[in-house]
Amino acid sequence: VAESTRLVDLVQADIDRFLEDREPSLASISPDLGLLVDLSRDLLRGGKRFRALFCYWGWRAVRDSDGDAGPDDAALVPIVLAATSLELFHAAALVHDDIMDNSDMRRGIPSAHRRFEAVHADENWTGEKSTFGQSAALLLGDLLLGWSDEVFDSAISALPSSAAARAEFNRMRTEVTLGQYLDILEERAWPDHPEAEQLARAHRVITYKSAKYSIEAPLAIGAALAGAEPGRIAALASFGLPLGIAYQLRDDLLGVFGDPAVTGKPAGDDLREGKRTVLVALARAALSAAERDRFDALLGASGLSDGQVTDLQETIRATGAVEEVERMIGLDVADALDALARADIGRTAREHLMELAETVTRRSA
Amino acid sequence: VAESTRLVDLVQADIDRFLEDREPSLASISPDLGLLVDLSRDLLRGGKRFRALFCYWGWRAVRDSDGDAGPDDAALVPIVLAATSLELFHAAALVHDDIMDNSDMRRGIPSAHRRFEAVHADENWTGEKSTFGQSAALLLGDLLLGWSDEVFDSAISALPSSAAARAEFNRMRTEVTLGQYLDILEERAWPDHPEAEQLARAHRVITYKSAKYSIEAPLAIGAALAGAEPGRIAALASFGLPLGIAYQLRDDLLGVFGDPAVTGKPAGDDLREGKRTVLVALARAALSAAERDRFDALLGASGLSDGQVTDLQETIRATGAVEEVERMIGLDVADALDALARADIGRTAREHLMELAETVTRRSA
Repeated sequence: VAESTRLVDLVQADIDRFLEDREPSLASISPDLGLLVDLSRDLLRGGKRFRALFCYWGWRAVRDSDGDAGPDDAALVPIVLAATSLELFHAAALVHDDIMDNSDMRRGIPSAHRRFEAVHADENWTGEKSTFGQSAALLLGDLLLGWSDEVFDSAISALPSSAAARAEFNRMRTEVTLGQYLDILEERAWPDHPEAEQLARAHRVITYKSAKYSIEAPLAIGAALAGAEPGRIAALASFGLPLGIAYQLRDDLLGVFGDPAVTGKPAGDDLREGKRTVLVALARAALSAAERDRFDALLGASGLSDGQVTDLQETIRATGAVEEVERMIGLDVADALDALARADIGRTAREHLMELAETVTRRSA
Repeated sequence: VAESTRLVDLVQADIDRFLEDREPSLASISPDLGLLVDLSRDLLRGGKRFRALFCYWGWRAVRDSDGDAGPDDAALVPIVLAATSLELFHAAALVHDDIMDNSDMRRGIPSAHRRFEAVHADENWTGEKSTFGQSAALLLGDLLLGWSDEVFDSAISALPSSAAARAEFNRMRTEVTLGQYLDILEERAWPDHPEAEQLARAHRVITYKSAKYSIEAPLAIGAALAGAEPGRIAALASFGLPLGIAYQLRDDLLGVFGDPAVTGKPAGDDLREGKRTVLVALARAALSAAERDRFDALLGASGLSDGQVTDLQETIRATGAVEEVERMIGLDVADALDALARADIGRTAREHLMELAETVTRRSA
């Protein structure tokens, strides 16, 4: 745990240093740009750093020579930069995601577009605050995307493994964007698809937008950075992919039943948004045709009352879908741990990855 | 001209090959993703390829050994990829820009978010077509941003100049995003600023969002790729920056007075959007306080009638601001050509850059 804590602290220090480095050049263009750095700093202060941790332990897993003591500070520089880059990328993805979902909160503070709206309102600027909020957040996300790429380049530039690590990074970037697209598409297009396909489609969305992105890809990037041969990257993927599915299934349960005080998001957030999750697919499959019509009419309807949200929660619970998702999480975690046990990696990394597997699938926020 | 035509054709071939290469991997995730490739292809078919051309001639300008005949095919591979990358980046920027500006058209076809809206409507999907259009276009832009980066990497990976070229590319990416942010900010915050600052602020916006981005940066990227020392990059910048300002001033005139049949955009587009351009700053400075209040109330007001657009056009024209902008364009072009004449570069490149300077500042679309 000490090694994970050290990594998280080093990533935070790299984030702070990066933003501090950028500040003067932005200020030299215009003092108005300070707001972009301030918002980035706030946004990057929070978060659970799961991607940074999986990236680190993927790297550590294939460095046989480190032993239990772990690498020295100099050896850490590239992997900390790579982990920092993933956190910057993730911040960008969240900023864009919150625009698309019209979310009010993120990491316990107002989402980026809401913060830009608030500045617009405070300053009494002209025009609609909402369009300013959306446009400014879109650009902040673009800026962070570019910065994540710069930091990733600085991580790999001097390494013999740079091409392999870059290929994994590029794959992650493309696949999560495609997964997000399938997600917003499914939310709108699901009635076109046969009932029998709904579960598989929901599963595909979380595979790309979350499982690969949040766990498999960070592991692969870290491992590739350490110079892993394809066999070892594949072994880590056999652990990371089912774990990533379990991670997202837990997230889906929290999105419907999570405690707002702990998640930092409104109760039943996913129900208001109309997300077509695996949980929803399982629940719908268990409903009668009439019940399903009623359910579909409520899910994602605008201006859902608290009572209607509770109604949807109870309907889902009554189908047994929650137990079914818990069962799936259990099976996926077991698959993941099984793959981890078989993987040819060092003992320290294996133990930390086991702990991380526990953390990401049993969390309440 | 033959050499420029060859470049444009090679860039188009690279774009086509890149998208064709990506198609199977997207299809293997989901057939639904084909739409993203189709829209990218349509979007990337149009455009004037100015950025690709400046990138090419920046490269060519510092390759003394090529002589008049030009480089052979093998030598062209990296620069064509770099130019292709700039066109992909530009397509991404346009997709995001059109969301922010709520534009209906781009390059003579419906903008990306409108095309996604149309698919939503055709398919009778659930929810609002406008939110789907915006979200899908946001993600298409993100995808293209990532792809532009991949192509740029493939351009520079084997070159000794890779770090220098990458630094110029990164600078471009950051600065145009910041310039765009200043642009949307100025549109809302301009009443807060003293009259005496309005012109300088409008000038700063076009410096970053357009002049550096469209001309200075492509030249610098091409030159850095060819291994130019800083002095030569600076010499090209002394040509590119004033030319870029002139280019954007021409664009501002077209945004107010351009012929919709030629520009592919609605008449008086910038007036409807309320852009705070140099042209507008000059016009306002020449108006009486009462006239200015009337002008400000119309500029960017929602639902402007055709008559009100004509009114604004005539008001601007009557101030003499059009002549003043033409005068500024003339001075900037003269500065640019002066710098070009002094630059230590080959004759062929100089001649082509002179021609390009003419094209970008005298165009009608």
